[in-house]
Amino acid sequence: MKLYDDPRSGNGYKVRLLLALLGEQYQYIPIDILRGDSRTDEFLQKNLNGRIPLLELDNGSFLPESNAILYYLAQGSKYWPTGCFEQAQVVQWLCFEQYSHEPNIATPRFWLTIKGMDDTPFNHELLAQKQKAGNQALAVMDEHLRSRQFFVGERYTIADIALYAYTHEADEGGFDLALYPAVVAWLKRVSEQPGHITTEHRNTA
Amino acid sequence: MKLYDDPRSGNGYKVRLLLALLGEQYQYIPIDILRGDSRTDEFLQKNLNGRIPLLELDNGSFLPESNAILYYLAQGSKYWPTGCFEQAQVVQWLCFEQYSHEPNIATPRFWLTIKGMDDTPFNHELLAQKQKAGNQALAVMDEHLRSRQFFVGERYTIADIALYAYTHEADEGGFDLALYPAVVAWLKRVSEQPGHITTEHRNTA
Repeated sequence: MKLYDDPRSGNGYKVRLLLALLGEQYQYIPIDILRGDSRTDEFLQKNLNGRIPLLELDNGSFLPESNAILYYLAQGSKYWPTGCFEQAQVVQWLCFEQYSHEPNIATPRFWLTIKGMDDTPFNHELLAQKQKAGNQALAVMDEHLRSRQFFVGERYTIADIALYAYTHEADEGGFDLALYPAVVAWLKRVSEQPGHITTEHRNTA
Repeated sequence: MKLYDDPRSGNGYKVRLLLALLGEQYQYIPIDILRGDSRTDEFLQKNLNGRIPLLELDNGSFLPESNAILYYLAQGSKYWPTGCFEQAQVVQWLCFEQYSHEPNIATPRFWLTIKGMDDTPFNHELLAQKQKAGNQALAVMDEHLRSRQFFVGERYTIADIALYAYTHEADEGGFDLALYPAVVAWLKRVSEQPGHITTEHRNTA
């Protein structure tokens, strides 16, 4: 397998984390999104939507979208539940992550810590809106986790992996995680799982 | 089953469409999101994230997130592929819909056709940004569909259902679908599927 990824990406980290937990080796192909590496003609032939991470299978097929890659890799493992309703609940949190969480928590981090913020009144208001919505997402997670160890079925699944990626670095987007004690306890629980890796680690072939 | 839904919601229409295709009866519970019905204490007890559609199973369990509801209802039907890679491709397009498509195509429609547009310079710039990103999403779909009948595996799946909902009303958000002929041909193909319903239809018990 090959993983096309920007090392700074939380979406890429989701995949690297699951691959490490599964003990899978892969070829790591760094893509610098700030330099436009994900928008070249060559890359767009692999993924029309011009985004990383992108998984290339040994048969040459490509699979984009971090949460779809998690779905694919987790099949048959303990990170994907066997019951249909619990599977749907995992999909529920993958959708929550893509719609309510990532755009509001990852984007402020990208602007404030990676790319730099364009200093316009529009961008400052958009940042404030995203931080407000990001805090609402963290509050939903905190309320859900108050009576639970993990997001679905009291077991560590790809729902936790998807949500962990940008939550554990949310301070880099201007969020104060101390306001969400159940989230902080869950972050610690995830980081203590056997085989856990940090964002810098690669499990390359 | 009960479906909590705002009749104007494309996310709700996804679920109504699949339920009709499956021939499933359900109790329809209208929720007026403009009146705040999805943010009452009573509703938040059912879905912490305060959104519709929301499915209530006969055993009293709740499942939010339109695409997770599609996943759940489609299991064992012809609208969900049997192969693992094709399943992952369906999840890929469900994620694309939530991240690249719905926020940029449904939100302009919501502002321009349903809620009304707050007349501030910020909102006008945000609308322009969303319409630009929405056109990029439609271009990705058009390119993908140029050589295909449906999004995944040349069969009608929940990937098509999820993407059809807001695409077929994109003109209400200021999009010109005539620019995307492969999308227009696919919309027609979807609307001609046996059992297809329009947005007004309910299959209620």
